[in-house]
Amino acid sequence: MKMHNFSAGPAILPAEVIQQTAQSIANYNDSGLSLMEMSHRGPDIVGIMKNAVSLTKELLGLPDGYEVLFLTGGASTQFFMTAMNLLDANKKFALVDTGTWSSKAYKEITKFGPCDLVASSKDKNYSYIPKGYDIPSDTNYLHLTSNNTIYGTQMHEWPDTKVPYITDMSSEIFSRPIDISRHALIYAGAQKNMGPAGTTMVIVKKDILGQIERDIPTMLDYRTHIAKESSFNTPPVLPIYVCMLTLEWVKKMGGVAAMQKRNAEKAALLYGEIDRNSLFKGVANIEDRSHMNVTFVMHDEAHNDAFMKLATARNCSGLKGHRSIGGFRASTYNALDIASVQVLVDAMKDFENQNA
Amino acid sequence: MKMHNFSAGPAILPAEVIQQTAQSIANYNDSGLSLMEMSHRGPDIVGIMKNAVSLTKELLGLPDGYEVLFLTGGASTQFFMTAMNLLDANKKFALVDTGTWSSKAYKEITKFGPCDLVASSKDKNYSYIPKGYDIPSDTNYLHLTSNNTIYGTQMHEWPDTKVPYITDMSSEIFSRPIDISRHALIYAGAQKNMGPAGTTMVIVKKDILGQIERDIPTMLDYRTHIAKESSFNTPPVLPIYVCMLTLEWVKKMGGVAAMQKRNAEKAALLYGEIDRNSLFKGVANIEDRSHMNVTFVMHDEAHNDAFMKLATARNCSGLKGHRSIGGFRASTYNALDIASVQVLVDAMKDFENQNA
Repeated sequence: MKMHNFSAGPAILPAEVIQQTAQSIANYNDSGLSLMEMSHRGPDIVGIMKNAVSLTKELLGLPDGYEVLFLTGGASTQFFMTAMNLLDANKKFALVDTGTWSSKAYKEITKFGPCDLVASSKDKNYSYIPKGYDIPSDTNYLHLTSNNTIYGTQMHEWPDTKVPYITDMSSEIFSRPIDISRHALIYAGAQKNMGPAGTTMVIVKKDILGQIERDIPTMLDYRTHIAKESSFNTPPVLPIYVCMLTLEWVKKMGGVAAMQKRNAEKAALLYGEIDRNSLFKGVANIEDRSHMNVTFVMHDEAHNDAFMKLATARNCSGLKGHRSIGGFRASTYNALDIASVQVLVDAMKDFENQNA
Repeated sequence: MKMHNFSAGPAILPAEVIQQTAQSIANYNDSGLSLMEMSHRGPDIVGIMKNAVSLTKELLGLPDGYEVLFLTGGASTQFFMTAMNLLDANKKFALVDTGTWSSKAYKEITKFGPCDLVASSKDKNYSYIPKGYDIPSDTNYLHLTSNNTIYGTQMHEWPDTKVPYITDMSSEIFSRPIDISRHALIYAGAQKNMGPAGTTMVIVKKDILGQIERDIPTMLDYRTHIAKESSFNTPPVLPIYVCMLTLEWVKKMGGVAAMQKRNAEKAALLYGEIDRNSLFKGVANIEDRSHMNVTFVMHDEAHNDAFMKLATARNCSGLKGHRSIGGFRASTYNALDIASVQVLVDAMKDFENQNA
């Protein structure tokens, strides 16, 4: 049975990554050991960690001066860890509020220092990306959530400012090329576009660290993990291994530029049907529509259950919209094939024919 | 090829747990989805989390008032998280220094409040467990590392005090019954006796929380994770799933009392050979010898490489001692069968016959 997995996260992974992981768990590289039982100080696991870092640098074109870390605790830990490492009474963040996750980030950041809320789309339930706001001239870092999983919005244009970004890219990392020089720090939970739940990637410009006065717990200081190559203590080996396999797959498929094209094609197909179909409508502002999470509702909510039943019968899973939006959400991460989007689109067409 | 995995961690897991995990990664319960791709809010993963908690409560006989959490960040995160949640100017910890990990805990704890170092075995390279020390009467919690992976020592007798313990049981959790009422909080990285790297178990007596004045980041407040049943944000699903399978295996094997017996038998066999064999000697004080990590060296270090070669030829892996001790370390966690210990003992006997 082939499932079409539209889950928002933990989310779809490439089929070959799943098969290779299952094999490595049963018996890693014919060693007679499971990948789960191997020392993180041994050459196999050290090699996996280095390869994951090296693939990240290659795929994103990271210049010298940026470090790649695989930590734990999710993006929710980065909310305060960024502030703890970069913010004190002499530094200031600004933040663009684009949804639940940026609101949570704001709450945690302000426990450590000042943060200006420079714009918000809360007035329209976060259905758009704010534009045209001012950033105070004394701002050191601008916190962004570049893709908003719940609402289906994405920053297709990045804010025009010289202030370096701190960017939560959890639900879109490796989905498109970025100009890394504008980001001082990027973080991303693995479980949307990169791997299973259990590791968080941090990409950090090394020279931004060590600029504040604060006695940071060793495990929460980015410098600890840079110095120890993410192995100060035992890293989450298995989630990192799966990320490495996924990044190898991205590379084989043509890199992040090819992912961008692939994701744009899926988005065009699905948004095209949402706009064409008389029963459905999109949720997000058209120019801010995400290429990762497609949110849509029915004009008549009474149809919801029947459409979900049809989609489920066609092996589509993970389509239920977030409770704060309702309706449907189709996440179309890198690993999702356009054939799966076509199955969903066909279900929408057939449902219209049956019900319109 | 059957390997005899003596790795100190990440460490051996039951063969049936490994096979079941590989299967669930390829296709979870015939759902057509990998376990790695499934939402943590769906019934399958929620059920796994609840089962892992319920097995922990059952196996350790936890009374009402204790909560079981599956967090991330390893024991190294608990070093400061315990202090951050429990310590302020009006509270005081005491700590028994039994090795590298307790020393690291001390360093992190003292960033948040006072901690008396009441005893240490550093004078003899941590080869014994300190006894007969005084604990100041104003101590609120006594921090212990009950098994010391590097040095091969274990607290077979618990400190005789009314002060509640905060106990790092990373390398021995579920290896023996404990009197939980004496512990206010227990933490354990999964990757030694419970699962793969990537999750950390915390068992906490709920009423010790909320007693201090400190604005704790949401993710570092135990109360957050109690309220959200370890799913405030996306938990490390796969590592927790493997822990759940391992706990099911412990239960099937007879529970922690049966594990204690099994581990004592392995320890008796291996320490017996170390003491009998003219070429080897134990490192730890005899009455403090760990039933989890057996440290031993050769009287003549010139033999080290040759013995390692022989053991490796017999499919023993992970025997190299920690750099701060040298020689050999055989970790004999729950999942290790006594037949593997016999293979090692036979290699030691044969090596003696060839070289004595």
